[in-house]
Amino acid sequence: MAKELKLNLIPLGGLGEIGKNMMVVKYGENILVIDSGLMFPEEEMLGIDVVIPDITYLLENKDIVRGIVLTHGHEDHIGALPYILKDLDVPVYGTKLTLGLLQGKLKENNMSNCVTLVTVKPRDVVDIGPFKVEFIRVSHSIPDAVAIAIHTPVGTVLHTGDFKLDQTPVDGDVTDFHRIAELGQKGVLVLLSDSTNVERPGYTMSERVVGATFDETFRMAKDRIIIATFASNVHRLQQAISTAYKYGRKVAIVGRSMLNVVSIASELGYIKFPEDILVDLDEINRLPSNQVTILTTGSQGEPMSALTRMALNDHRQVEIIPGDTVIISATPIPGNEKLVARTIDHLFKQGANVIYESFSGIHVSGHPSQEELKMMINLVKPKFFVPVHGEYRHLIKHAQLAVDMGIPSSNVFVAENGHVLEFSRHRGRISGRVTAGKVLVDGLGVGDVGNIVLRDRKQLSQDGILIVVVTIEKETGGVVAGPDIVSRGFVYVRESEKLMEEAKEKVKLALEKCEEKGITEWASIKSNVRDAIGKYLYEKTRRRPMILPIIMEV
Amino acid sequence: MAKELKLNLIPLGGLGEIGKNMMVVKYGENILVIDSGLMFPEEEMLGIDVVIPDITYLLENKDIVRGIVLTHGHEDHIGALPYILKDLDVPVYGTKLTLGLLQGKLKENNMSNCVTLVTVKPRDVVDIGPFKVEFIRVSHSIPDAVAIAIHTPVGTVLHTGDFKLDQTPVDGDVTDFHRIAELGQKGVLVLLSDSTNVERPGYTMSERVVGATFDETFRMAKDRIIIATFASNVHRLQQAISTAYKYGRKVAIVGRSMLNVVSIASELGYIKFPEDILVDLDEINRLPSNQVTILTTGSQGEPMSALTRMALNDHRQVEIIPGDTVIISATPIPGNEKLVARTIDHLFKQGANVIYESFSGIHVSGHPSQEELKMMINLVKPKFFVPVHGEYRHLIKHAQLAVDMGIPSSNVFVAENGHVLEFSRHRGRISGRVTAGKVLVDGLGVGDVGNIVLRDRKQLSQDGILIVVVTIEKETGGVVAGPDIVSRGFVYVRESEKLMEEAKEKVKLALEKCEEKGITEWASIKSNVRDAIGKYLYEKTRRRPMILPIIMEV
Repeated sequence: MAKELKLNLIPLGGLGEIGKNMMVVKYGENILVIDSGLMFPEEEMLGIDVVIPDITYLLENKDIVRGIVLTHGHEDHIGALPYILKDLDVPVYGTKLTLGLLQGKLKENNMSNCVTLVTVKPRDVVDIGPFKVEFIRVSHSIPDAVAIAIHTPVGTVLHTGDFKLDQTPVDGDVTDFHRIAELGQKGVLVLLSDSTNVERPGYTMSERVVGATFDETFRMAKDRIIIATFASNVHRLQQAISTAYKYGRKVAIVGRSMLNVVSIASELGYIKFPEDILVDLDEINRLPSNQVTILTTGSQGEPMSALTRMALNDHRQVEIIPGDTVIISATPIPGNEKLVARTIDHLFKQGANVIYESFSGIHVSGHPSQEELKMMINLVKPKFFVPVHGEYRHLIKHAQLAVDMGIPSSNVFVAENGHVLEFSRHRGRISGRVTAGKVLVDGLGVGDVGNIVLRDRKQLSQDGILIVVVTIEKETGGVVAGPDIVSRGFVYVRESEKLMEEAKEKVKLALEKCEEKGITEWASIKSNVRDAIGKYLYEKTRRRPMILPIIMEV
Repeated sequence: MAKELKLNLIPLGGLGEIGKNMMVVKYGENILVIDSGLMFPEEEMLGIDVVIPDITYLLENKDIVRGIVLTHGHEDHIGALPYILKDLDVPVYGTKLTLGLLQGKLKENNMSNCVTLVTVKPRDVVDIGPFKVEFIRVSHSIPDAVAIAIHTPVGTVLHTGDFKLDQTPVDGDVTDFHRIAELGQKGVLVLLSDSTNVERPGYTMSERVVGATFDETFRMAKDRIIIATFASNVHRLQQAISTAYKYGRKVAIVGRSMLNVVSIASELGYIKFPEDILVDLDEINRLPSNQVTILTTGSQGEPMSALTRMALNDHRQVEIIPGDTVIISATPIPGNEKLVARTIDHLFKQGANVIYESFSGIHVSGHPSQEELKMMINLVKPKFFVPVHGEYRHLIKHAQLAVDMGIPSSNVFVAENGHVLEFSRHRGRISGRVTAGKVLVDGLGVGDVGNIVLRDRKQLSQDGILIVVVTIEKETGGVVAGPDIVSRGFVYVRESEKLMEEAKEKVKLALEKCEEKGITEWASIKSNVRDAIGKYLYEKTRRRPMILPIIMEV
């Protein structure tokens, strides 16, 4: 009897982190990729724009990658595609809105003609290599989200994608409980499930709750209403626009990304409104304040965003007026807490009444709380369980939850990016490891900024730089010009002339000593200069600027 | 009839921010200062160690400053004193523990002999110039905290300091409700009250709740217990040590600041334990795991702290062992959320069971929630109300709360640092403004890092620096050496040789053009070089490093 092939699941992103989701499914000489997301940089990744998964493993197996399937259109699930598809020529499968948003990105990168996009609908089943791939509707904070079931000869893998079990979604399209239950009945080998909110007990509130809060707020507001939310939360935008319509207000949309989403979503039929309700800013500024709604980006306090500019009285077209009601319909993403708080403070200072997270009902999450996670496990009854999409503590807690639900702990795997999970019909294990990691994108450079550059940026950011230039004569080695010292980010130079003069003396002394000792090698001279001046400056200032000696030769 | 003197209240810190609390009370030619705190730097203050209030106003009025009174020993109330007392020779009044902690700081700065410290007890009344200053016990997350009543000819000012109304404090010393009520009965002109937690409904839980949680956790734990909390939370430390004693465990303390606080607090009698319960780390490492408790700093995920090092397996003496229970008995201070989350993740990875903020009862706040704030207003029944100690939104909400409690809105002032509040017996108003702001401390430099330096650090941190050096001949202006280009924090040089070569060509071209056009002024040459290379690099990389041309002359 031929040896049965094993099924591999290899996370290349999204495990032990929130962001850059990417899961590889491998069976024999066939690879299928689920999602290709980006992540926003950690604080210490100075100057970095975005972070994408390291796809070395996929490039090494280029010939057997059969396709990429997408669960939904959020950046952390599709954002790496413009980078990845440059090196990987494979078809991409997704629902209409997901591909619509992706298409926009590809266009920006002049790549829209070189990628094969295959549009699917919920309940579609597509053959990709040996995989029967099935798309299953779930609720999330963006429409057209799907879970993905992959039927393989070894068994069925169900990847939930990001989901919540919203019983009353805004568009009425509830999670396809029936199909999930049916799959569970037939038997699912592995369940991969969203761990983001595993720390939250109970249920995540329905998106409709926000609509009710909007209604209440619109009913009470006498002047303008400004709502900031995530650009991609189409249902939230729909509810805001519908409520504005109900209360006889017009709506202006501010912020490039939100304009972009509204245009794509309305074109594809995911957002609906009477034609004349949307007006541009010029026009809305001429209306009485009780007929005005402004929908804007900037719910995360991002420095360049529309809302932040308004808060700082720095927006070209919108000025905050006392009496304005500003609704921040979002929760700060971890790391953005202080930026959001600062924006709220500034808005209050401008005289606005700000409604924000401390009020319930102004925002709901798109991810499942504990009871929903349990429901998913009960419906699917998987043999093996792998928590995905979460920081390490989320994965641990989700794994514990699965064990508490009765899945044997030997069948639950807390994996890391790069781990190779191997499954037969009856057994599962972590069998190895492939290359995985973070690729940093800075401007046009993908992966050219590494640890050395970041370490330098860190040092530069803390205490600045001091450049020591000296010109010496080739023949004699004698100093013919300099030493000159230039500093940036170190001290305010005009107030520290004496310090700089003395530093220059230290350099001269060090150079003289080198000459005396007959040291002529540049590296040694530089290191002597660096030591002398570094020690002196630390004594005087307790700072350690980067010291960069440059020797010129004439 | 002589014109009656007015009473001024001038906040120099702590309004519109959490930190660097400082309130000036002025009557005639007499100034009293309440608290002198520091603040930790905002994210964009690169390289800055701490921030202290700008005391220009006090220095301009040096001769009439009669004293500084302290509410309690937290950094944001006493931390600026080592800097400020260098320029201001006035006596400092505080309770025993507060001055004990201050004394430690002054010793570190070799200042302990040049400052007059006056120890007071709750209910003491001290004459300081024309002010009768009364100290009134309140509960807070550090013992020996007081509110301060200042009796002046115009009326009584009550400054709550930081407080909570803990009905069952660990040391049994409840807030002095009786004296506060008595003052309210007699009539208080102005109440200044702590706004930190105004967004929280209900009551802040008693510190004893944490003791109960400790007890439960100790009862269940089979192996070592590691507790991280704020070094200054003496009652929390007391509860941890008492619980350890109850369960037959020894305690080792890790972290310089915590060792320091325990030593001062036990010497002064604020923390009590059987002599042999505290052991050092060497000793505790030899005990069976169920007899071990480690108390440590690092509850904020600070990179160099003991707990963070343990989590990263980088601590010299403590290694996390699977089975360890780690309790993070603290809440992340805004801005530290990601650091704390990362530490928790690493602890889980080392195999610890981590108990942290998502569990209730593991930490309680030291500040009053809404019902306590209302109670304070009802007890004091002030004529005028000024919310203090909070970000702008907190002040606004606290002001709203006071108005809801029946204080006329014309008697409630949301002030900013530097505002001069003027009170007579019957009227109050914001009458002017004095210098106030942030002084940045970087190493030994106090105030020498300003906006230009910070702007440079910001640019350096984002895209690094590129230095262009060229040596020219004095007589002819001809280039005799260079141009050379050195970069740091820009790109990984070995991978970008071509880019640097081409950049060098751009510089040569720019220099040649200058020569052709007869441009000899250095500033013009530099700006031509900067433009040429900056444009080229932006096109190629979409980055904008700082470009620093240096011309040497021989």
